[in-house]
Amino acid sequence: MNKMERAARAVDPYEIGLDRNDANFAVLSPLVFLARAAHVYPDRPSVVYGDERYTWRETYTRCHRLASALQRRGLGRNDTVSVIASNIPAMMEAHFGVPMSGAVLNTINTRLDAEAIAFILDHAEAKLLLVAAEFLEVVQRAVALSVTKPPLVLIDDGSGVENRGLPDYEAFLAEGDPAFAWALPDDEWRAIALSYTSGTTGNPKGVVTHHRGAYLNAVGNALAWQMPAHPRYLWTLPLFHCNGWCFPWTLAMLAGTAVCLRRVSAAAIYEAIETEAVDHFCAAPTVLTFLINAKPTDKRTLPRPVRVMTAGAPPAAPVIAAMEAEGFAITHVYGLTETYGPAVVCAWKEEWDAFEPEARARQKSRQGVTYPVQHGLAVMDPTTMTPVEPDGETLGEVMMRGNIVMKGYFKNPSATAEAFSGGWFHTGDIGVMHPDGYIQLKDRSKDVIISGGENISSIEVEDILYRHPLVQEVAVVARPDTTWGETPCAFVTLKEGASLTEAELVAWARDNMARFKAPKTVVFGPLPKTSTGKIQKFQLREQAKALT
Amino acid sequence: MNKMERAARAVDPYEIGLDRNDANFAVLSPLVFLARAAHVYPDRPSVVYGDERYTWRETYTRCHRLASALQRRGLGRNDTVSVIASNIPAMMEAHFGVPMSGAVLNTINTRLDAEAIAFILDHAEAKLLLVAAEFLEVVQRAVALSVTKPPLVLIDDGSGVENRGLPDYEAFLAEGDPAFAWALPDDEWRAIALSYTSGTTGNPKGVVTHHRGAYLNAVGNALAWQMPAHPRYLWTLPLFHCNGWCFPWTLAMLAGTAVCLRRVSAAAIYEAIETEAVDHFCAAPTVLTFLINAKPTDKRTLPRPVRVMTAGAPPAAPVIAAMEAEGFAITHVYGLTETYGPAVVCAWKEEWDAFEPEARARQKSRQGVTYPVQHGLAVMDPTTMTPVEPDGETLGEVMMRGNIVMKGYFKNPSATAEAFSGGWFHTGDIGVMHPDGYIQLKDRSKDVIISGGENISSIEVEDILYRHPLVQEVAVVARPDTTWGETPCAFVTLKEGASLTEAELVAWARDNMARFKAPKTVVFGPLPKTSTGKIQKFQLREQAKALT
Repeated sequence: MNKMERAARAVDPYEIGLDRNDANFAVLSPLVFLARAAHVYPDRPSVVYGDERYTWRETYTRCHRLASALQRRGLGRNDTVSVIASNIPAMMEAHFGVPMSGAVLNTINTRLDAEAIAFILDHAEAKLLLVAAEFLEVVQRAVALSVTKPPLVLIDDGSGVENRGLPDYEAFLAEGDPAFAWALPDDEWRAIALSYTSGTTGNPKGVVTHHRGAYLNAVGNALAWQMPAHPRYLWTLPLFHCNGWCFPWTLAMLAGTAVCLRRVSAAAIYEAIETEAVDHFCAAPTVLTFLINAKPTDKRTLPRPVRVMTAGAPPAAPVIAAMEAEGFAITHVYGLTETYGPAVVCAWKEEWDAFEPEARARQKSRQGVTYPVQHGLAVMDPTTMTPVEPDGETLGEVMMRGNIVMKGYFKNPSATAEAFSGGWFHTGDIGVMHPDGYIQLKDRSKDVIISGGENISSIEVEDILYRHPLVQEVAVVARPDTTWGETPCAFVTLKEGASLTEAELVAWARDNMARFKAPKTVVFGPLPKTSTGKIQKFQLREQAKALT
Repeated sequence: MNKMERAARAVDPYEIGLDRNDANFAVLSPLVFLARAAHVYPDRPSVVYGDERYTWRETYTRCHRLASALQRRGLGRNDTVSVIASNIPAMMEAHFGVPMSGAVLNTINTRLDAEAIAFILDHAEAKLLLVAAEFLEVVQRAVALSVTKPPLVLIDDGSGVENRGLPDYEAFLAEGDPAFAWALPDDEWRAIALSYTSGTTGNPKGVVTHHRGAYLNAVGNALAWQMPAHPRYLWTLPLFHCNGWCFPWTLAMLAGTAVCLRRVSAAAIYEAIETEAVDHFCAAPTVLTFLINAKPTDKRTLPRPVRVMTAGAPPAAPVIAAMEAEGFAITHVYGLTETYGPAVVCAWKEEWDAFEPEARARQKSRQGVTYPVQHGLAVMDPTTMTPVEPDGETLGEVMMRGNIVMKGYFKNPSATAEAFSGGWFHTGDIGVMHPDGYIQLKDRSKDVIISGGENISSIEVEDILYRHPLVQEVAVVARPDTTWGETPCAFVTLKEGASLTEAELVAWARDNMARFKAPKTVVFGPLPKTSTGKIQKFQLREQAKALT
């Protein structure tokens, strides 16, 4: 039968009687990983927080109760349930219990002020707010400012803050049915979470993600990081940040253990590695910096290799080299809230093992290639939407497409359309494509310094300054200049007890990089950071401008 | 805003402006894994077959050519392209190149006779048939018998069979464009493969699978087996069998190496482990049996642990124990062609490591729990569709549901409806649910022996007979009996040089199991097997009947 004959036939045999049904189709949702962990490994530890210890069976029961209690309050599909808490067990539970009720989880950055929280509660149309006691004061102010005024449920986080007569999280769970018949969403495209990006200007945007993407990125984390069964994973990365990069769901899939930590410090990390047998954690490069610069009394020799996934800003090569020398095995990933967290990984090649330590670290500081579950990654000219030359030099905007790209921005069709223009998600990050197909970030588009018509990557300048033995942390931004338009201005934190002058560092920089790239100005002092450890360059740009 | 207020609102904000587009949605298809392997690891070995060696870049180019050559012949979406070949590189290529053209891959069992092949070619409406030279003769007879009479393309497999003037596979590839612009299917539910089950009675049924399921099971293999990057995987399992359990796609995802073997033997397996550094393979339990019973001159000490995934029949506990003693690490899985290959895994628990070897092997001979990517697994009464007691004793039919269940049977709506009745896929396998939620197969429904009203699991009897030191291989079937209805009849192959009488084995059996379960009849000799190494119990049942 040829094509014409087939066209003449009433129906294509591959298209009849082979439809979806309950036997051969299920929506993709990361909630199934919790059910499986509780079924297969009911007695394995799920969540550990000081003396509080849960098994996967217990976590599943508590999530049933949470989902049931939410439904009893009339909450269900597409209702926003907000949470403000640090990395405590209730935060892990919220990642399952809230979507098990059909509702959408909105985790809120704990460092925001009352005004910003109020904006989010109103924009998200929050129907309920779970709040950890330590944040009660700012949250009550936020609720007072908000129009929505969601009811609160208070989580006792051990911070010692008094209850003020609010409903208690444990009592709320007790209301819920431990055998609640929860259901998967009817469509894998349904929203699972709403996360507001900490925009540096203007109001934050609400990133809406779905069950399908959360499932796939949970899988992607395990594949890209080659995670074994039952990892013992330390929460240093805030769980409120982009749903902890989907790791709550990855941990359920692998029946691992989430080791919670309310306050992250070098001493606490080293201690957890020893006492809780931690073997995996995720952290921003600034966390790595404070680990390698920790006081000797806070440090411990690693009892086993500890695998660290880092992202959030391109880690400086010297930071990677120093970590690896201590026995941490670094995997470098890249992503945004809009991509469910990491969506790009510096996939390692065996032949790089033979490189000198610095060359290896340089290789590792590249962002890399797509997660196996992402579809497309390109560096393009955003106006023509054509890929730049893969020469490792030509700058372009990093673009992504695929299943681990958000549904869009909540109630913001114009921002959504702009972000997806041309059928790709525009990251706003500037990078290059190397000849081997690995991308490397060079800057946020707004962070590029244009001096005398030349584009200078602030990251490249920072990378070199990090090699100075007395430098602990550095950030480079543009300083307005009447002659050059802009010049690089470096903000530098020196190592404890170190002393260095501006002239000395500028001279060293000129000896170590192209002269036009060397900072003309150096300011010493601590660097302002976001709650997720990102250096707040917009503040530094303001400072640099004020210097003029 | 409460529910009523929201209902009154024109639209739910989670349901507007957040639709699928090219940036945030891509169909799930395992073809993307090949593209990624070629992009990230272009120079790593993809396929090895004697002196023939390919890299992932080369394999990708050859698959482009294959897809392009097929399209130039007018073949595309929903056209069936059949292949008959053993585990040679062209078989790996067909798993990518055929679906890259949009066509559906139909791999045909190489052990079938001309009549059976002709039936499949006609039923599948094959538009083209790739045939490896060693099968040319039977295939030409089959084509002569068929109505469809698809054109042939001959693959030189090194078997020395002459070409007979047919188009050559390499020349066919040379016709194709190495830069062919292939496209993913427009829907992840599109058919990717059509595999005929080797039904023991009646005509075979054509199992249609889709891109989504193939993608998810490729991922599931890596997760369930905890595979590392770059496995060196030996093809002992026939690639024609259920698409090699989706491992062609898993290997691309992990940028591993497929080590091809046209003829499987104990000597060839041990040699490949040594010379090709093989660290993973899949095999039926009969392959394990011939490995442990191989001549000492064929064996080699394993240079490293070799991981073996086994399925196809429940392996006898003593076989597992013997393999592990040699350094093979066994993972036991279970599935059917209808479930893309393995969909259930005996997920291991650390506490079982402390068990005595025999108890460990017994634990491992259970089929287990769902793959992380499958949705449901149950043992049910097929008439009431209610789960049996999870007591490890009550027999029921094993049922599955989820994304790695086939679309259905090709052009067979009644068989499809029957297989999916009640919203579950009926496996036809009889098993029990243990209290810990692990299933264990007790028999194919037709293999259960009913003696004096008691159900006897033939597998349970086999398991015990395997413990006899002189027994190499055993299969137990029902023999009609005027008094008891049926009695167990054992077909036994003894170890080389061993001697044992029927009376001796029957007496030993009565000492080692419930008397009514012990075989009343023993027949010594080789066991008939399918091409995939499954013992053909239907033949033995005929023999047992003839004994009456």
